Amino acid sequence: MSLSPLFWPIQLKSKVIYILDETLLPRKLSYIKARNYEEACRAIKEMKTRAVGQVLLVMYIFLQLLKQGKRKDLIKAAQAINATRPTLSFKSLTDIVLGWAKKGAPLEKCILGFLEGLKYSRIKQAEEVSKLIRDGDVILTHCNISGLMPLIGEFCRQQNKKVSFFTTETRPYLQGSRLTAWELKRAGFDVTIITDNMVAAVMSLGKVNKVIVGADHLAKNGDIANKIGTYGIAVLARHFKLPFYVLCPPASHLKSGREIKIEMRPDKEILEYQGLRLAPQGVKGYYPAFDVTPAGLITKHIYMEIKR
Amino acid sequence: MSLSPLFWPIQLKSKVIYILDETLLPRKLSYIKARNYEEACRAIKEMKTRAVGQVLLVMYIFLQLLKQGKRKDLIKAAQAINATRPTLSFKSLTDIVLGWAKKGAPLEKCILGFLEGLKYSRIKQAEEVSKLIRDGDVILTHCNISGLMPLIGEFCRQQNKKVSFFTTETRPYLQGSRLTAWELKRAGFDVTIITDNMVAAVMSLGKVNKVIVGADHLAKNGDIANKIGTYGIAVLARHFKLPFYVLCPPASHLKSGREIKIEMRPDKEILEYQGLRLAPQGVKGYYPAFDVTPAGLITKHIYMEIKR
Repeated sequence: MSLSPLFWPIQLKSKVIYILDETLLPRKLSYIKARNYEEACRAIKEMKTRAVGQVLLVMYIFLQLLKQGKRKDLIKAAQAINATRPTLSFKSLTDIVLGWAKKGAPLEKCILGFLEGLKYSRIKQAEEVSKLIRDGDVILTHCNISGLMPLIGEFCRQQNKKVSFFTTETRPYLQGSRLTAWELKRAGFDVTIITDNMVAAVMSLGKVNKVIVGADHLAKNGDIANKIGTYGIAVLARHFKLPFYVLCPPASHLKSGREIKIEMRPDKEILEYQGLRLAPQGVKGYYPAFDVTPAGLITKHIYMEIKR
Repeated sequence: MSLSPLFWPIQLKSKVIYILDETLLPRKLSYIKARNYEEACRAIKEMKTRAVGQVLLVMYIFLQLLKQGKRKDLIKAAQAINATRPTLSFKSLTDIVLGWAKKGAPLEKCILGFLEGLKYSRIKQAEEVSKLIRDGDVILTHCNISGLMPLIGEFCRQQNKKVSFFTTETRPYLQGSRLTAWELKRAGFDVTIITDNMVAAVMSLGKVNKVIVGADHLAKNGDIANKIGTYGIAVLARHFKLPFYVLCPPASHLKSGREIKIEMRPDKEILEYQGLRLAPQGVKGYYPAFDVTPAGLITKHIYMEIKR
């Protein structure tokens, strides 16, 4: 079973971290080199990597420090990582590593074990979702869940179930069209792109019959934060009586979605696209990068177990 | 009270029709010349003009024929117009003119009277909506209602009510950002652009408190067809308990929204933007240009009376 390049977009080779530059896809499959944690943190801020890529990158930053003999910089690196972007819970990741260090555990081994566990858990998650899919289903998805969607498709194939996909383009960064459609087509699946405002139309016309999305943050009560637009799709799925499944990261310490800090990004990112001005000069935009979907709209959470 | 260029985007001067090229806005305010009905019909197909511009253009096509002494071409022109785009009811417009001709009515006078009546009715519609707005309201809108939104704002100003606006960008043609934000800013109103997938977020955060949209087609039962995305916004407005107002054209002869023919446009129009490829090569898209919002989701229809 071959995996999408997005499933494991970060590598560490001879003390250099290689980060798949997701902003260049699908035009170019290329990797950015990060020689230290500052360069790696910049890649997070500039959204060169996202979703699970961020989780991997955090772990590889610490591994890199160890390989470079810079164990003394662990805390400084953790602080820089925590300050990159607010919605994914970077602190809960760096706390795991700092916790191991504090206990005097064998750090490199712990991190490698964590990464192995993450890989295993993600594959299990995809397999679990595939069991919810019936022959002939058409799945609507939004944004990108880092290689899990083609993997779900592969599990369906193994189970002799035909599945096809619709993806929103996911403005403003177009991860749905640039990443999800790209990796699904690459893996030989039938995939159709719609603009974000076509969800009600395709649902009402019966063109899709299940929704599967990921999440950047899971609060203790089951509320999730995910790419802007997810909340609206969840409301529509409820209205049209379609199941809405969420592949979740491990839960954070936050009680509910109301406590999740939503990242506000520069409005330039919605008013321009790749240097092309889309909006009239002088008009402002509003760009929350995520929204919070209440647990009550989620048909089923697919949880992830990570050993710590 | 000054009117937006979009309020009356078609003119007839010395036998030439001038069509505001809405695809070039906001970069350029320029007009296409149509010397005959074939050129005018091409402008409709290429979406150079849309919404009420199409209604005006139909009337000006007939006026042009009369001024050019080509009364014999009335039926041929009507057939060409009816074949341009399916969702707006072109036939009900051309039938009005052919009906006058059949009865031997003074055609030029009838058409000019119709246009005068249309102008009056549209201004009345804007005034009627303005009475539903309270001081401090923030209106969410979608796509573009041909100059009526700044006019609604002007009526609010006259009534000493402060009103501000959010508009979706309205993919794929970006009429919300290119046209609505442009004309509102031009008229001195506070306007913020969001991507189409931010509607649930701004509603849940209380950033907008009323929705006002237009419609390209009104069926007898109150169902409307409007720019793709309208249906989803209506469902969200209901979910978040916000009023959803629709400025309607005169009702067609169709019984319900199910009978409205929805225009399917080439998927290239969502996979590219102004020549820039947005999606991976070889991936397909699905592009219904309109969706149908059931009457039950509409808080209030603002009807338009046109004398025939």
